[in-house]
Amino acid sequence: MTIFVTGHSNPDTDSVTAAIGLAALLNAQGQDAKACMQSSLANLNPESTVVLEKFGLTAPEEMMDVAGKTIALVDFSDIGQAPAGITEAEVVTIVDHHKVGDVTTNQPILVRVEPVGCTGTVLNKMFKDAGVAIPKDVAGGMLSAILSDTVNFKSPTCTDDDKAAVAELKVIAGVEDTEALFMDMLKAKSSVDGVPAKDLLFRDYKDFDMKGNKVGVGQLELATLDQVAAIRDDLLAAAQAVKADGRHTVLLMLTDVVKEGTQLVVVSDDEALIEKAFGSKMEGTSMWVDGMMSRKKQVIPDLQKAFGC
Amino acid sequence: MTIFVTGHSNPDTDSVTAAIGLAALLNAQGQDAKACMQSSLANLNPESTVVLEKFGLTAPEEMMDVAGKTIALVDFSDIGQAPAGITEAEVVTIVDHHKVGDVTTNQPILVRVEPVGCTGTVLNKMFKDAGVAIPKDVAGGMLSAILSDTVNFKSPTCTDDDKAAVAELKVIAGVEDTEALFMDMLKAKSSVDGVPAKDLLFRDYKDFDMKGNKVGVGQLELATLDQVAAIRDDLLAAAQAVKADGRHTVLLMLTDVVKEGTQLVVVSDDEALIEKAFGSKMEGTSMWVDGMMSRKKQVIPDLQKAFGC
Repeated sequence: MTIFVTGHSNPDTDSVTAAIGLAALLNAQGQDAKACMQSSLANLNPESTVVLEKFGLTAPEEMMDVAGKTIALVDFSDIGQAPAGITEAEVVTIVDHHKVGDVTTNQPILVRVEPVGCTGTVLNKMFKDAGVAIPKDVAGGMLSAILSDTVNFKSPTCTDDDKAAVAELKVIAGVEDTEALFMDMLKAKSSVDGVPAKDLLFRDYKDFDMKGNKVGVGQLELATLDQVAAIRDDLLAAAQAVKADGRHTVLLMLTDVVKEGTQLVVVSDDEALIEKAFGSKMEGTSMWVDGMMSRKKQVIPDLQKAFGC
Repeated sequence: MTIFVTGHSNPDTDSVTAAIGLAALLNAQGQDAKACMQSSLANLNPESTVVLEKFGLTAPEEMMDVAGKTIALVDFSDIGQAPAGITEAEVVTIVDHHKVGDVTTNQPILVRVEPVGCTGTVLNKMFKDAGVAIPKDVAGGMLSAILSDTVNFKSPTCTDDDKAAVAELKVIAGVEDTEALFMDMLKAKSSVDGVPAKDLLFRDYKDFDMKGNKVGVGQLELATLDQVAAIRDDLLAAAQAVKADGRHTVLLMLTDVVKEGTQLVVVSDDEALIEKAFGSKMEGTSMWVDGMMSRKKQVIPDLQKAFGC
C-alpha cells in the first residue's frame, strides 16, 4: 500500500517540499510513500521550481484525484484545498501549520499541527523525534519553505521555532547565506515578466467559504509595487472575471515585502465590509494596509470576523 | 486569560485525567490553565471517582458551557461531544487519540492526535518533549487512563506506545502492580449495584451522526455478563426510551472483558443493517460479537461503513 503525500491546491514551496519531506520520513520508517502535488511540473510556481533545481530535488508527481487512494496531507486540512476524490480517499496522516480545517476521518490517525510559520518547521521536529537524519537535499527544500512562508522571518506568522529550524536545516543543507537564498526565491516568485495577469492572480490563490459566501484571496509577494504597475489594469480585470464566476469577493494582495505592507485589490459585492474588515479605505479599486503580510494570520481571520463566521 | 481544559461529554477516566494532565503541563509552561469536566463530581463515573481518590487528585471543575471562553480539548475533536457554546469559544489546543472530528478553528493552533490507545500516552510524550517532569499524582491519573482505555492492554486500540507509556508512568506514580490497579478500576466501573438502568446506559455513552441518522452507542465493561442478568430487561427498556427520542438506533455494548467479546443490545429501525455491520445475527434483542471490545476502533468504523458514511 503506497501512501501518497500531497499538499494543497495551487501548491507553494511549503506544500511541495513538505510532501517530499514527509514521504522521505515515512520511507525511512519503512513505509511506502510517494510525494505528490496538485500541479504539473510545467505549471509549478517559479519559486518552487527554482528551489527544486537549486537542491537537485525530484519534483513530486502530479496528482489531481486521490479517490480510492491512501493519502497523507501536508500544509492543509481543508477539503476545499484537497485533490478531487478526497472523500473517497483514506487520510492516514495530517501535518500542518494552518487553522484546523474540515477534513474528518473514520479512524484514529496521526495529526500534528502547530501554530508555527511553516510545515517544514513541524516536519523538522518529527524527523528529530523519530531519530531519522534529514537528507541534505530534503533539508534544503524544507529550509527554503520556511524562509518563503515566514518571508525571511518578517511575517507575523514567524515563531522562534521557525528560526531554530532554519538554524538547524541550513547546516544540514550546506547553505551558508540564507539571505541570498531568500532573495533568489523572491526574485523568482515576484517575476511577472511575460506572465498573463490571470496566471499571476492564481499563482498563490485560495477560495474560502465565509458563511455561505465564496471568497477568493490571491497574493503576489513583490520586491516593489512598481513590478506590477504596467499590468495593474489587467490584474483588476482578471480578479473581476474570477469574481463573476459565483464569488462574493475576490481580493488580490500585492504585498510589498520590503515596505512590509499590502496594496489590496478589492472586487466585492460589499466594499464597505472589506474596508471595515481591514480598517482601511478604498482608493479607487484598492486600499493600502500597512503591516499586512500574511493571508493566513491576518487577512482570513479579519475576513471571518467581518463575515460573522 | 485562563485556558479551560475539557474532555468530552459523559467523561471517562481519560477525559478527566487528560484534562488534569494538560492543565498541569500548560501551567508548568507558564500559562494559566484549569482542568474542567462535563460532569459534577457527584455524577462522575465510579471508575474515575476511584482514580481521583486513589491518587489524591483534585477533581476538575464542572463546566457545561464554554461560550466566550478560551479552551483546550482533550480526548475528542467532535462538536457533538463538546460542551455547549463550543462555537462561541476559542479552541487553542487539541490533544486526542480518536478519529479526526469536525471542530474547526479560525487560527492556527497546536493539534496533537496520535493513533494510540489513550490520550494519556500522547500527553506523556508532550511532557517529555517539553522537558517538564510529570507530578506523581498526575502520572497516576494518566497511568490509570491508559490501563482503562486499553482494557489492560487487551483492546485492539492498544499500541506499543501505550505499553511504553505505562512502563514510564508507573515508576513516576509509584505503582508497582498495574494488574491490581486495573482490577480495582474494573470493579468500580462494572459495579451495577443499586444503579438505575438509565444511568448505566449513560455511564459511557456517545451519540454519532451517521449520514443524517442519530445513532447512540453505550458501553458497559463487565467482569462477567452475569452482573447484569437481573437488570437485562431494564437496560433494554432504557435503550428503547432513548431511541424513542429521535434516534435511528441505540446500541448498548455489554462487554465481557474476560471473555473478550460483547453482547450487543440492539434497538434499531433497521436490525438487518446492524447485523450486516457486525457480521452477526440477532438472538432476541441482542447479538454476541466475539472479539468486540472497542467502540471507537470496531463499532463506529463498522457502523459508518454500513450507513455509507
